[in-house]
Amino acid sequence: MLAAAALSLLIGAAPRPAAAPQSTYDTTVRRVADHPKLKVALETVDREHDRLVTDIIRLTEIPAPPFKEDARAAAYLEMLRAHGLTAVERDAEGNVMGLRRGTGGGPLIALAAHLDTVFPEGTDVTVKRDGTRLAAPGIGDNSRALAVLLAMIRAIDAAQIHTASDILFIGNVGEEGHGDLRGVKHLFQRGPFRDRIGMFISMDGAGGGDDITHGAVGSRRYRVTFTGPGGHSYGAFGLVNPAFALGDAMRLFSTIPVPSSPKTTYSVGVVGGGTSVNSIPFESWMEVDMRSVSPAELRKVEEQFLAMMQQAADEENKARSTTQGRIAVDLKLMGDRPSGETPRDSAIVQTAAAVVRAIGLTPRFSFSSTDSNLPISLGIPAITIDSGGRGGRAHALDEWIDVEKASSLQGIRSALTLLLALAGME
Amino acid sequence: MLAAAALSLLIGAAPRPAAAPQSTYDTTVRRVADHPKLKVALETVDREHDRLVTDIIRLTEIPAPPFKEDARAAAYLEMLRAHGLTAVERDAEGNVMGLRRGTGGGPLIALAAHLDTVFPEGTDVTVKRDGTRLAAPGIGDNSRALAVLLAMIRAIDAAQIHTASDILFIGNVGEEGHGDLRGVKHLFQRGPFRDRIGMFISMDGAGGGDDITHGAVGSRRYRVTFTGPGGHSYGAFGLVNPAFALGDAMRLFSTIPVPSSPKTTYSVGVVGGGTSVNSIPFESWMEVDMRSVSPAELRKVEEQFLAMMQQAADEENKARSTTQGRIAVDLKLMGDRPSGETPRDSAIVQTAAAVVRAIGLTPRFSFSSTDSNLPISLGIPAITIDSGGRGGRAHALDEWIDVEKASSLQGIRSALTLLLALAGME
Repeated sequence: MLAAAALSLLIGAAPRPAAAPQSTYDTTVRRVADHPKLKVALETVDREHDRLVTDIIRLTEIPAPPFKEDARAAAYLEMLRAHGLTAVERDAEGNVMGLRRGTGGGPLIALAAHLDTVFPEGTDVTVKRDGTRLAAPGIGDNSRALAVLLAMIRAIDAAQIHTASDILFIGNVGEEGHGDLRGVKHLFQRGPFRDRIGMFISMDGAGGGDDITHGAVGSRRYRVTFTGPGGHSYGAFGLVNPAFALGDAMRLFSTIPVPSSPKTTYSVGVVGGGTSVNSIPFESWMEVDMRSVSPAELRKVEEQFLAMMQQAADEENKARSTTQGRIAVDLKLMGDRPSGETPRDSAIVQTAAAVVRAIGLTPRFSFSSTDSNLPISLGIPAITIDSGGRGGRAHALDEWIDVEKASSLQGIRSALTLLLALAGME
Repeated sequence: MLAAAALSLLIGAAPRPAAAPQSTYDTTVRRVADHPKLKVALETVDREHDRLVTDIIRLTEIPAPPFKEDARAAAYLEMLRAHGLTAVERDAEGNVMGLRRGTGGGPLIALAAHLDTVFPEGTDVTVKRDGTRLAAPGIGDNSRALAVLLAMIRAIDAAQIHTASDILFIGNVGEEGHGDLRGVKHLFQRGPFRDRIGMFISMDGAGGGDDITHGAVGSRRYRVTFTGPGGHSYGAFGLVNPAFALGDAMRLFSTIPVPSSPKTTYSVGVVGGGTSVNSIPFESWMEVDMRSVSPAELRKVEEQFLAMMQQAADEENKARSTTQGRIAVDLKLMGDRPSGETPRDSAIVQTAAAVVRAIGLTPRFSFSSTDSNLPISLGIPAITIDSGGRGGRAHALDEWIDVEKASSLQGIRSALTLLLALAGME
């Protein structure tokens, strides 16, 4: 339902998808890129580049650990409000957003940057500056994108640009790790704009502006816990042992055949359980990750995995005594990121590709796991792009970005061109 | 060498072993039990029972965590000195001891109680008293035995008893858990009396006085760590995974056949490793415990285990790509308690049995893992007995003993009778 609605709205605003030849997208993009108002907008970004840097630093230094994005969200909400957006609000999940109204006739375009970092509470998030190089946990992933969104609003306003589409600017929660896309899940499942978003662009991470993530690597993550009666390693020898069930489960899991295309993977990440070397454990557990770009392949791996976990418990119950209790297996879904693909020939992907070509680069079409997974799985045209500039060591304590102006501005120019090409610029 | 020396000394003092019929031991024990000096000694224990209780409380309230027995050892050293022993000293490992000289002709008899508890630093060791019931961590295991040794010295002295054997009273370190018998290992391998101890009695825990632990359950404990190059669960899929090697290792280990007699066991106690659900771990590990009353069976299990760990690494290196690095396995021996058995027909076991019968009970011959494991493995006659009284919940925070006089004295009477029967009482 959502998907169909989004698609029909889209057709009204952007170049006709699928059928349109590549040159049509290039033409549209060139028209935007050459528009005098875009020049004014870009001059504004250039002139206010120091303010962008100040915003990046300010946002980075407000800690935003997983599930604890409140402080940064509150600050960002005020920043969105100060940028003159309407319907500025914080939804029930903690996402903050504001609307820039269009003149009508285009799909609602959501442009989102996630608020959360991977870093726990207590991490030193002080920004260390050395020339144009800024280092701090989370600075590139994703403070820069949050600040770029604000710079884009100011630029569009300064150039007095009117778009056909309404544009929803979002700082969302829960992109990283155990956050499990909770921000965008709420946005598309229960949020106030859930039925209206026609296109979705996630801006995530620093980077050169040639990467278009249109494929969603889906994942299913489980915590598997084998439990049993436990006992003394010597006195109770012969009773079922959850660690042996876990061992068998890991071995079985390791044998699942998967295709290399569509790429499908599985892994045991963390294992644990047991209290002492001389006790049969009460429980032994593992955390597993299964991924695929194909929903069908992901389902196939998951079904085999689920059967194997039960098989491992059953085999241990057969191999040793269950007089004091049996091995049971508990399967807790701890991560669920849907997979899918925004078609390469869709308007959003083709427009993004034309933008990359317009700045003289070759588009790279990639698959990843980002906030776009969710709309993609719903059939809503969605891609993830980067926020410009250079950077590295994302998710590490020595994460850094370089705000050297030329590369920093190029990324913003790309994003702005893309947004206006999709939103219909007057 | 030690074993042979110990055996020849033993023959001089105690009833001839092996060949001697049961009645000979009963006769010897009855002669000691009926000796007027034993009556004086037991009257002393009875009269000074309150002092025993005071000593139990005092020792319990000096914390003695694993590897941190120093404070309790220092206090006990002074108590041994105050009891008029000679050659009072603290050895290089932290054991404290003192000698009560005999008149000659008997083997040196070591009577040891371990100083250490299983409880970590910071555990509240305040004794809670309710009538004759005393509760505190470590009070039964092993403060009571430490205090009983002192009561025995006072009783023998008060009765002016001369023994043929020298008797070495020991408060030793490192009996529990990771202590891995370090106290008795030092005593028999490098300590000043290492070549002289002809018999060894460990007094360990409260109890009714009918249990004779003459069998040493040996154990070999390993921490097995599989390491590999690690990587992203999706991006680096196809590389070797230490968790899969661990799984295979656990499964292989679980299939080793073992005899029920001589009882032989194995277990995986604790597993761990990995940093996040979406990373191939750099390392995955487990702690395993193998035990047997038979050194040969223990060795057989261990040899199969060691081969299987290498096999698991090899198989993972065959199953997946090693382009970024191979799975390696590290085997760290974390526990080594030798096994063996002081023969049922040996003088020390038969004398202990006769003492149990003399108090109207039926001897129980058992196997366990105690300080006696070490001398037993060396062929030195050794048993572990309890310290009398009642108690429970050893190794738990609500550990308790009951110092009700009748059962408390009965255990001390047994120990005293045994010691004097073995030491040769004039």
